[in-house]
Amino acid sequence: MSDALLDVISRGVTIYDLGRPMFKGMPQSSNHPQFSHSLPRRHGDMVRADGGSAANDLIVTGTHVGTHIDALAHVSHDGKLFDGSDARASGVGGRFMDLGVHTIAPMVRRGLLLDVASTLGLEVCPGGYEITPDDLDATVERQGVTPAVGDVLLVRSGWGRHFDEGSDAYAGTASGVPGVGEEGARWLVERGAVAVGADTIAFERLAPGGGHALLPAHRVLLVESGVYIIEAMSLDAIAAAGVYEFTFVLTPLNLVGATGSPVRPLAVVPNG
Amino acid sequence: MSDALLDVISRGVTIYDLGRPMFKGMPQSSNHPQFSHSLPRRHGDMVRADGGSAANDLIVTGTHVGTHIDALAHVSHDGKLFDGSDARASGVGGRFMDLGVHTIAPMVRRGLLLDVASTLGLEVCPGGYEITPDDLDATVERQGVTPAVGDVLLVRSGWGRHFDEGSDAYAGTASGVPGVGEEGARWLVERGAVAVGADTIAFERLAPGGGHALLPAHRVLLVESGVYIIEAMSLDAIAAAGVYEFTFVLTPLNLVGATGSPVRPLAVVPNG
Amino acid sequence: MSDALLDVISRGVTIYDLGRPMFKGMPQSSNHPQFSHSLPRRHGDMVRADGGSAANDLIVTGTHVGTHIDALAHVSHDGKLFDGSDARASGVGGRFMDLGVHTIAPMVRRGLLLDVASTLGLEVCPGGYEITPDDLDATVERQGVTPAVGDVLLVRSGWGRHFDEGSDAYAGTASGVPGVGEEGARWLVERGAVAVGADTIAFERLAPGGGHALLPAHRVLLVESGVYIIEAMSLDAIAAAGVYEFTFVLTPLNLVGATGSPVRPLAVVPNG
Amino acid sequence: MSDALLDVISRGVTIYDLGRPMFKGMPQSSNHPQFSHSLPRRHGDMVRADGGSAANDLIVTGTHVGTHIDALAHVSHDGKLFDGSDARASGVGGRFMDLGVHTIAPMVRRGLLLDVASTLGLEVCPGGYEITPDDLDATVERQGVTPAVGDVLLVRSGWGRHFDEGSDAYAGTASGVPGVGEEGARWLVERGAVAVGADTIAFERLAPGGGHALLPAHRVLLVESGVYIIEAMSLDAIAAAGVYEFTFVLTPLNLVGATGSPVRPLAVVPNG
Repeated sequence: MSDALLDVISRGVTIYDLGRPMFKGMPQSSNHPQFSHSLPRRHGDMVRADGGSAANDLIVTGTHVGTHIDALAHVSHDGKLFDGSDARASGVGGRFMDLGVHTIAPMVRRGLLLDVASTLGLEVCPGGYEITPDDLDATVERQGVTPAVGDVLLVRSGWGRHFDEGSDAYAGTASGVPGVGEEGARWLVERGAVAVGADTIAFERLAPGGGHALLPAHRVLLVESGVYIIEAMSLDAIAAAGVYEFTFVLTPLNLVGATGSPVRPLAVVPNG
Repeated sequence: MSDALLDVISRGVTIYDLGRPMFKGMPQSSNHPQFSHSLPRRHGDMVRADGGSAANDLIVTGTHVGTHIDALAHVSHDGKLFDGSDARASGVGGRFMDLGVHTIAPMVRRGLLLDVASTLGLEVCPGGYEITPDDLDATVERQGVTPAVGDVLLVRSGWGRHFDEGSDAYAGTASGVPGVGEEGARWLVERGAVAVGADTIAFERLAPGGGHALLPAHRVLLVESGVYIIEAMSLDAIAAAGVYEFTFVLTPLNLVGATGSPVRPLAVVPNG
Repeated sequence: MSDALLDVISRGVTIYDLGRPMFKGMPQSSNHPQFSHSLPRRHGDMVRADGGSAANDLIVTGTHVGTHIDALAHVSHDGKLFDGSDARASGVGGRFMDLGVHTIAPMVRRGLLLDVASTLGLEVCPGGYEITPDDLDATVERQGVTPAVGDVLLVRSGWGRHFDEGSDAYAGTASGVPGVGEEGARWLVERGAVAVGADTIAFERLAPGGGHALLPAHRVLLVESGVYIIEAMSLDAIAAAGVYEFTFVLTPLNLVGATGSPVRPLAVVPNG
Repeated sequence: MSDALLDVISRGVTIYDLGRPMFKGMPQSSNHPQFSHSLPRRHGDMVRADGGSAANDLIVTGTHVGTHIDALAHVSHDGKLFDGSDARASGVGGRFMDLGVHTIAPMVRRGLLLDVASTLGLEVCPGGYEITPDDLDATVERQGVTPAVGDVLLVRSGWGRHFDEGSDAYAGTASGVPGVGEEGARWLVERGAVAVGADTIAFERLAPGGGHALLPAHRVLLVESGVYIIEAMSLDAIAAAGVYEFTFVLTPLNLVGATGSPVRPLAVVPNG
């Protein structure tokens, strides 16, 4: 009665959590509403006749905070979205019905880690370093796994280790942040990626002191190519384990008309 | 270089979305902060020198709204949580570090649909109907799948069809809501469920006019047994397809110390 | 060294609070984000070395909830705001810099209560009753106070007593709500009012079952005349005291670019 | 028919706004939820049949941000509030019913500016400078106005000029902030102040690098004496005008059970 998928699952899988915890004060971009969590009700505030009590939460958050995915509605160029629609008109009504995050299908598909830092023999690529197509080619060669159409491609610069140092360090305002630039983004698109991700706050290379003034990789991916971007991922554990190929699982919240969603992506590999 | 899991995935899977869309005005309990979505920035509000523009979101929400999972910290009884800790003391600091939703491991495991409505020959169980152990036994027998320790068990009453009718109808304030009671909850616990779910707003049976005054199944599951509860699921599509057994995927947001999280659970089955 | 104003104040004044309390579950329009209050930090969550502890709050709210004032940016007609500007263009950037609530100067000026309900010999004007220019004329005559240019004019229908009955009753969805219509609004404008107020949720008459489909008085006041509107006021205490003329005090929050603000207006009268 | 208060008002008053504008990115303490403003609805999102359209707002904010008042419930010492009640127990239910900001009566009373900076011959008191009782005595003497029981006393250090430089400068994390210490607070209490205020983020002196580790003046005022504290005031305009004595107007939002409220205090003086 069981199925082939359950057969594999039943023999045991290892699940790598590629998401970051979400908590007050976590590193995030000041471009987006600050994540906040509060307990409107705590136990004992209101006790039912039978002795029961419930605590609950209030969450205030941007959608581009924590580990998150960018929907195609997030970025426009010269006033146009990916589908050629007028970007301003698409938002009338307060939500993006055509390219919002609710249009991203849940993902259970092949994912690849492209561990560029290790390929370069570095623990962390330096702030502002641009990951080139050559770096990506060398990584594929070293790892022995080849991207295929429909994959999710995750680029690791090692920058994720700065997450625990707070917003300034992780956002790299002064230092810049490593990542692909326009050419690296094209390389990923040409491999047929459905979505791409990285262990940094803005996925792409940020110049030292430059902030988010220019985001060419976002343009190439979201506007020109329809490829989703996943940011602020936790990629060190799969890198340490040498897990370069895996089943990638992603379920964005079904936020109708939103431009993104916090997510908790998984890399799943069968045991034994 | 591929693995057994990817082999199955690569031959194609069907993904059933067991979550509801989240939107302003969606049915939810008035016990929890209202879901709200706004676009602080729309395209054209701020255009970069290169012609790029980004839109973003502000989300305000309870965690027990939409399709969501209850962490063990959500409910206490006689002042105690599942681990025997003092419920009030556990919340000091404004978050539940021991039993918060961040302690729920992402799930990739066997799930079963228990389609009670169909077993009873009904489209929808009536408001206030208590699903009994006999109903559950009959459902297992009819479906020919047996729960095993570690499964996620999803109880379908058919009530999900009222979701589109708004909060009053779905919450069943006047009508009551069908679901398991204390005995049905024990039946689920005895099968070894790790988590349980339903297509209703509070998982368990609510008496007509009774509201949330008494929640015995919550006590049995969350406080006495350490079994998570998933509410407001969309179960009609898998029921219609006769998919009773599947790989269940759930990735709660990693909200440190929160009592729950909105989720988008999946049922995954291999094609062919 | 003292001044004439302080001389009066020092002899004693009576302060009437014309605002409503703000609390979770208070009556409000479902058109606006729900008011929510939570304590992110309670005493004991974090105690300083010296034994001190602080509790704090998180407020989520629309600005058109509770007793509040409408800025001119709130309403447009045929795409134009009061100053003739394009309403859509005025909001680009996510705030209304020209006609937002920050442009309303704090008010310390003459206010008049127009107690229409008492003039009509009613405790409460019926739902859907339109207060006419004749009603207003009769009220002025009965009360013996004449509006002057620059006054704040407060129209009392008696409907405020439904505030304590919850949103459905106070919003009058089924019953309609009494208030001025287009002609009454013109009467108020012609008297030279700087701002007008009422003890109802939308200031103007709402037809039974009609909701907010048509708001002609809003158009006359906000769009055609530049007169601010104050809603959901508490006017019963000044009516009971027969205080028809007073110093009206209003300090909207200085929310840059917002379309309104919750307020707590006062009527101040010298003692003796 | 008019009254003595209206007589004065009718001859003209000058209103000084002692509050700061509230906007995204304004300086605030990171101890409190970040102020955020968004437009869920803009003009054109939904146009009524008659050509009307409404824009509205969503505000998320702490209550101790912007110019604000601290209620007595805000601070406890050794587990007790001002009324001797158990601080933790007082917050059960998620609001402070006895000492919350809703218990602060709206104020129309005498206010005094104590311009310490000018007394000391300084534009701005240096970061970390403790304003002493001698400084306050010298200020009263220089200004020729004597505090009386029931006054609101506003202490000006000149630090308000740093408000426009952003959170780091204004909060004085590195530099410290000038203000009264424990002794200065007692001086204010002994004069019989009902409320006190300052042009700084935490009212009292903060040591360089010390943050909010110790807040003795808060203890003296809020816990020992029941005197409200108003923070982040704009005092430069009244200082420049030499307005040391005035009618002070304050209307906190009536937030039931909250520990504070954003406010917009006024100083009103008659013309001529």
